[in-house]
Amino acid sequence: MLSYPEPIRELVEQLETLPGIGPKSGQRLAFFLLAAGPERAERIARAIIEVHRRIRRCAQCGNFSVGELCPICADPARDRATLCVVAEAKDLMALERAGEFHGVYHVLDGVLSPMDGVGPDGLRIAELLRRVDELSPGEVILATPPTVEGDATAEHIRGLLADREGLRVTRPALGLPVGADLDYADQVTVARAIRGRTEMSD
Amino acid sequence: MLSYPEPIRELVEQLETLPGIGPKSGQRLAFFLLAAGPERAERIARAIIEVHRRIRRCAQCGNFSVGELCPICADPARDRATLCVVAEAKDLMALERAGEFHGVYHVLDGVLSPMDGVGPDGLRIAELLRRVDELSPGEVILATPPTVEGDATAEHIRGLLADREGLRVTRPALGLPVGADLDYADQVTVARAIRGRTEMSD
Repeated sequence: MLSYPEPIRELVEQLETLPGIGPKSGQRLAFFLLAAGPERAERIARAIIEVHRRIRRCAQCGNFSVGELCPICADPARDRATLCVVAEAKDLMALERAGEFHGVYHVLDGVLSPMDGVGPDGLRIAELLRRVDELSPGEVILATPPTVEGDATAEHIRGLLADREGLRVTRPALGLPVGADLDYADQVTVARAIRGRTEMSD
Repeated sequence: MLSYPEPIRELVEQLETLPGIGPKSGQRLAFFLLAAGPERAERIARAIIEVHRRIRRCAQCGNFSVGELCPICADPARDRATLCVVAEAKDLMALERAGEFHGVYHVLDGVLSPMDGVGPDGLRIAELLRRVDELSPGEVILATPPTVEGDATAEHIRGLLADREGLRVTRPALGLPVGADLDYADQVTVARAIRGRTEMSD
């Protein structure tokens, strides 16, 4: 029985290391890349390399950035009195897409996860405290994900910020996703939505 | 509202050109590649480039190959009296994995598809006829896929081979996939399985 020639096998193996790509889709992608021709394949390969060569972390918030400061930290119009803490830069992007937040961010680079050996020193928490000292914001929104680890991370940071006078520490609301069927939402979400119910205005 | 920095956007756009990868999974892959570190990303990029640099088509059958002949055509133990015609090199690999066929192959590079403008000249049919002349096989198996286009392609080639005396032209059996639930198989497959039913032996 024949196996693929070595360069194809190597490509399939490399593609299989990507999230959501198993042996079947790895093979499909490899053959697609072969059929696509060298120019197109090289464009993809170059984009993978360039992203590492050109993207760095914003010196202030930790966001992905081409320059030393990301567009948000470089923007004088952003409200520095509200600091939003996120686990990952991609969460920051999701919040920006929502267009509701006009303050500045701080990226933690993860959440507390004892199972994976991530303690407070593994996150950018010292940097966060330094930024809170610097900016003295009126509010810190702890927008880590609504998961066990995300909640624990928010709890931990809340503790560290407890002695700052006049600082509001908040967390995004939990409830039903807009447009969702009640029937499809999980029980915990429905329970949180009921517990957090708000008064309707006329 | 912020969009991704240009190198990330370019990477997401490149990844989205791949089959089965939409905007969401493109973003997920891009952030994974960013987080994975430059060495790992470069290994993937290099595998994509190398596959084009090192893989060519077998001079005899059209299979993917590192050398001038693929391992099958280079193997003197393969039975040259049976020639199996496949649409794509990956179909050849699937047949090899099954381990049931011990002859040699011919890759057509597609199937007849008037909708996509693929006529007989767009396939390696002239090369096939030349190989049949050369090898004078006793049997040609037309293993193009059991689809409208694959059937039409097999029909077309059968016509071209009709005048060769003593040549059996066959097509793989159609029927239920092994291990499949009758209930889940489509009607056409069930009908073909019944029509092609075989005698049970003691």
